Amino acid sequence: MNIQTYLDQQRQRVDRFLEQIVPQASAQPQRLYESMRYSLLGGGKRIRPILTIAAAQALGYEDDAMLPFAASLEFVHTYSLIHDDLPAMDNDDYRRGRLTNHKVFGDGMAILAGDGLLTMAFELCSRSDGAGEFSAAQQLDIVRELSHGSGHQGMVGGQVMDIQAENQGIDLDHLQKIHSFKTGRLIRAAVRIGSIIGKATPQQTQCLTDYAEDIGLAFQIADDVLDMVGTRDELGKDAGTDERRGKQTYPSFFGIEGARKLGEECVQRAIARLNTFDKQADPLRHIATYIMARRS
Amino acid sequence: MNIQTYLDQQRQRVDRFLEQIVPQASAQPQRLYESMRYSLLGGGKRIRPILTIAAAQALGYEDDAMLPFAASLEFVHTYSLIHDDLPAMDNDDYRRGRLTNHKVFGDGMAILAGDGLLTMAFELCSRSDGAGEFSAAQQLDIVRELSHGSGHQGMVGGQVMDIQAENQGIDLDHLQKIHSFKTGRLIRAAVRIGSIIGKATPQQTQCLTDYAEDIGLAFQIADDVLDMVGTRDELGKDAGTDERRGKQTYPSFFGIEGARKLGEECVQRAIARLNTFDKQADPLRHIATYIMARRS
Repeated sequence: MNIQTYLDQQRQRVDRFLEQIVPQASAQPQRLYESMRYSLLGGGKRIRPILTIAAAQALGYEDDAMLPFAASLEFVHTYSLIHDDLPAMDNDDYRRGRLTNHKVFGDGMAILAGDGLLTMAFELCSRSDGAGEFSAAQQLDIVRELSHGSGHQGMVGGQVMDIQAENQGIDLDHLQKIHSFKTGRLIRAAVRIGSIIGKATPQQTQCLTDYAEDIGLAFQIADDVLDMVGTRDELGKDAGTDERRGKQTYPSFFGIEGARKLGEECVQRAIARLNTFDKQADPLRHIATYIMARRS
Repeated sequence: MNIQTYLDQQRQRVDRFLEQIVPQASAQPQRLYESMRYSLLGGGKRIRPILTIAAAQALGYEDDAMLPFAASLEFVHTYSLIHDDLPAMDNDDYRRGRLTNHKVFGDGMAILAGDGLLTMAFELCSRSDGAGEFSAAQQLDIVRELSHGSGHQGMVGGQVMDIQAENQGIDLDHLQKIHSFKTGRLIRAAVRIGSIIGKATPQQTQCLTDYAEDIGLAFQIADDVLDMVGTRDELGKDAGTDERRGKQTYPSFFGIEGARKLGEECVQRAIARLNTFDKQADPLRHIATYIMARRS
């Protein structure tokens, strides 16, 4: 399979669903929907929804009925970017090559758009219109995964740890903990939601969870490396921000080449986790490789 | 029954549960939990959780297993107060007689504490440890109610409309729509979650929903009146803020006495909605009266 073709196709599939599911900017309250749409539909690799889809596919599930659950990950991811970019947090002016949400809509509306996206993620997971396709128990499991991955012991907790660690000398264990909360747990949730959709056995769920933890770490290492070697054009945002903020990163512990090597090891370990899966898991295998090879 | 005794007892019941369920401030990430606890455990009438409890009681349900769902309403309410108080929104320094969250913890942490509380509300509703007591279908219905009441077509949407209406001449219809989104839909969700817990028939659900819409309106009218006639000591926050912000309110349309009369009519209508319920619905009846009679 060609991974770039696969990623493009699935990204377009996710984009079509997102475009259709978020209310039109002509609906009321108009300004809220404009702000939500600006960030949600403003590009992005859609890697988290694609991980959900690829995990379900690895288990033989392929129907579009899974898209609300896959999309919920992108709603959560987008809200987190909007809030992180605020002046009270990272104070970033650019994201994906465009002005950040608060630069266009103001801080108050950006906070509310984030709140609206986060809440709508749970609305999507609890929708009743797919009834029959998924059991209430499956949907409730998905809600639980999403709340754990994104909350105080997941993404939000990691963001707090990250802010508190700025300009502090932290050790590698602490760095790994921050990243596993801030980035890893939502990626883990994305894969595990796919495993709920595909009705994985407990053993399959464990393999997929281990896979997710390995690629989550590789994802963060790749991000740290890109922040050092990428250009503003490639990244769509300023490069070198970690260093300016006094943040410890994988390259600051291991050097750029050392960090790359560590990331590659994570990728190989992730692929090995899928040994008992057949070729339906090829997208997951290729995504693992893609994560370290990407340029943005 | 003595409504004040009932409200005190139920408030203490909710407070005990909240104290126990939100992580200790000694856990990691410590600063996040300190900030979440500061606002969640900083007093409050707990009217939304109590409405959930009272609605379940009206249907004969009384077990403590309902407390996570009742508490989820207070998590959502508290997050909304933290975000609304931010400088980017209402810029309030005091709430419930204490400094607002961002004045103590800073804007960034206040945003994250709000995000953490909102996410944890959905975590509470999807808990698996009460399995057996509630079906997955019931819990999923509760998640759906909570997301609708608090999201873009509920509280968040209402907050956007409210901000956009400041210093604008709006008509009464528009005012009612703002309030029904901003305040009414979460109160409606509180009562309807109680009706899911108590396994209401469709007819009972309709009566309880009508009741909730009537008291939601009364609640907002009472708030508007209190903002004009209350003192800072009674309210625990500045009085007269609506007028200074150029907000239209029920008293600005009907005068203080006219608004009070309108509120009383809502209360009487709400009580009449419960005609087919027995004395187990007395707490709901008394709460309706209390809502217009309260001084804070």
